[in-house]
Amino acid sequence: MNNKLLVIGTMAYDAIETPFGKTGKILGGCATYIGLAASQFETQCGLVSVIGDDFEQQHLDLLEEKGLDLSGVVSIPGEKTFFWSGKYHNDLNTRTTLDTQLNVLTKFEPIVPDNYKDASIVLLGNLDPNLQLEVLSQMDVKPDLVVLDTMNFWIESYREKLDEVISKVDVISINDEEARQITQTHSLVEAAQKLHAMGPNYVIIKKGEHGALLFHDQKIFCAPALPLEEVFDPTGAGDSFIGGFVGHLSQCGKISFEEMKTATIIGSAMASFTVQKFGTKSLEELTFSELRQRVYTFKSLTEFEIELT
Amino acid sequence: MNNKLLVIGTMAYDAIETPFGKTGKILGGCATYIGLAASQFETQCGLVSVIGDDFEQQHLDLLEEKGLDLSGVVSIPGEKTFFWSGKYHNDLNTRTTLDTQLNVLTKFEPIVPDNYKDASIVLLGNLDPNLQLEVLSQMDVKPDLVVLDTMNFWIESYREKLDEVISKVDVISINDEEARQITQTHSLVEAAQKLHAMGPNYVIIKKGEHGALLFHDQKIFCAPALPLEEVFDPTGAGDSFIGGFVGHLSQCGKISFEEMKTATIIGSAMASFTVQKFGTKSLEELTFSELRQRVYTFKSLTEFEIELT
Repeated sequence: MNNKLLVIGTMAYDAIETPFGKTGKILGGCATYIGLAASQFETQCGLVSVIGDDFEQQHLDLLEEKGLDLSGVVSIPGEKTFFWSGKYHNDLNTRTTLDTQLNVLTKFEPIVPDNYKDASIVLLGNLDPNLQLEVLSQMDVKPDLVVLDTMNFWIESYREKLDEVISKVDVISINDEEARQITQTHSLVEAAQKLHAMGPNYVIIKKGEHGALLFHDQKIFCAPALPLEEVFDPTGAGDSFIGGFVGHLSQCGKISFEEMKTATIIGSAMASFTVQKFGTKSLEELTFSELRQRVYTFKSLTEFEIELT
Repeated sequence: MNNKLLVIGTMAYDAIETPFGKTGKILGGCATYIGLAASQFETQCGLVSVIGDDFEQQHLDLLEEKGLDLSGVVSIPGEKTFFWSGKYHNDLNTRTTLDTQLNVLTKFEPIVPDNYKDASIVLLGNLDPNLQLEVLSQMDVKPDLVVLDTMNFWIESYREKLDEVISKVDVISINDEEARQITQTHSLVEAAQKLHAMGPNYVIIKKGEHGALLFHDQKIFCAPALPLEEVFDPTGAGDSFIGGFVGHLSQCGKISFEEMKTATIIGSAMASFTVQKFGTKSLEELTFSELRQRVYTFKSLTEFEIELT
């Protein structure tokens, strides 16, 4: 395994409203969150994405300073960057999309840079399944691990293509409601079994404030979520999770259930930072020492002694 | 600390309907579930409850064979045992009460048997707060640990008395919606802080299929729930949880956050058995070796290795 990590996803501007405040246009997009999370690790991470000519140099600089390779990011002159605006309700579990301007996304033709065509890990961020398939088809060497993140929009409107992607990946990461939606099953254990049968050897079901479940070969791992006094802005939590997950696997260079357990905790820790501030702010400021500290907090959350005689 | 565990609660007959089937009148009541769960441990457990003359001898025999002390169970001649009937909906998270016949409950005057007036642990099962207070007032010696279980009905209709009970207990065990209801707070971390301020040093928030949280003095422990393919009947899950919790503490004879973490896992394991069959059936059949096995399953659910350099 090499330590190349290829990420396809959106780079965007978001405008977010939560019960705690409201932002103007801020940096967003799944590839952005994933890249920032993965940049905590010793990995060579390349983003494949598309931006318009309104994308600010300071944001490109920020990502490059974090060591991310942007040679796969195409800028389309005369077009604007993908924009999303949403409002979270009081419980922060539901949100309303206020505005979606696809802009450059409608013209996105992903091109994998030559030196990433042998990347050991490919992360297909939340995006049109056709584009996810296109990226896979451009790989010269079969990756050791392909990870898929998706969401309800693609399940509802692109089901056939999505199923094709699912059949080609090793790991699928979705939330509980989406797992139930895809499999038409209430029990998450059964849903995971059905998802396994569709292709992926590893199934991650994210449960927001209730943590995440990792399923593999009859085995289950439960990652807690950090109980927080306040969730400030949930945007990008799932992307941060999967970015931390692949970042760790890419650095350690081993694919196993044991390593994925640790990766799931690291992803959960990463998401716990993201939700504490608006947008990418937490991830931009995060140091590895803070991350390590929080991972140990996660460990102490679930550790207990047992001696039953 | 002695190993006497005093439990006040209902003994009842239930009729239950779930998506998986329907029962006739079966054994129920919170004291029954708590007693059966606690009977797995080396503890002297006495129940304070009330029954009518329709309560079957075979059910009294069952509880006595499990080693439970029924000297605090009063039988009222000419009256019928408390009866509850309910129907669970497809997701098993919501239920409709079809029938409640209070019967003997309206005449319940709890009497703590003399030899339990020095019990080290008192568990106030889900019941009228006035009766919970009455039991506490009958104790000769201040217990080392008083544990309270309650539910939405008492929060809505008996709030003042309930607050008085809460101010006198060491541990409160309630579910997430009830914690939010009592404290008028969405965040469970904040809700726990508010509950602490009302009296209890330890706060347990049960989250059903998402496990349970134990809060104490700025510290938090997350117990997972066992991911099950099927939840057959949720009746008595919370009672089994708290019964296992106090059973373990009574046997080990130590009150600390560390022991309560283990007790929370044991309670969760106990609840995981209860929901797999109708009513008390699982707890009636459960062996300690099966319980131990499941507790180790819980351990493996959350264990992971971490070495971040």
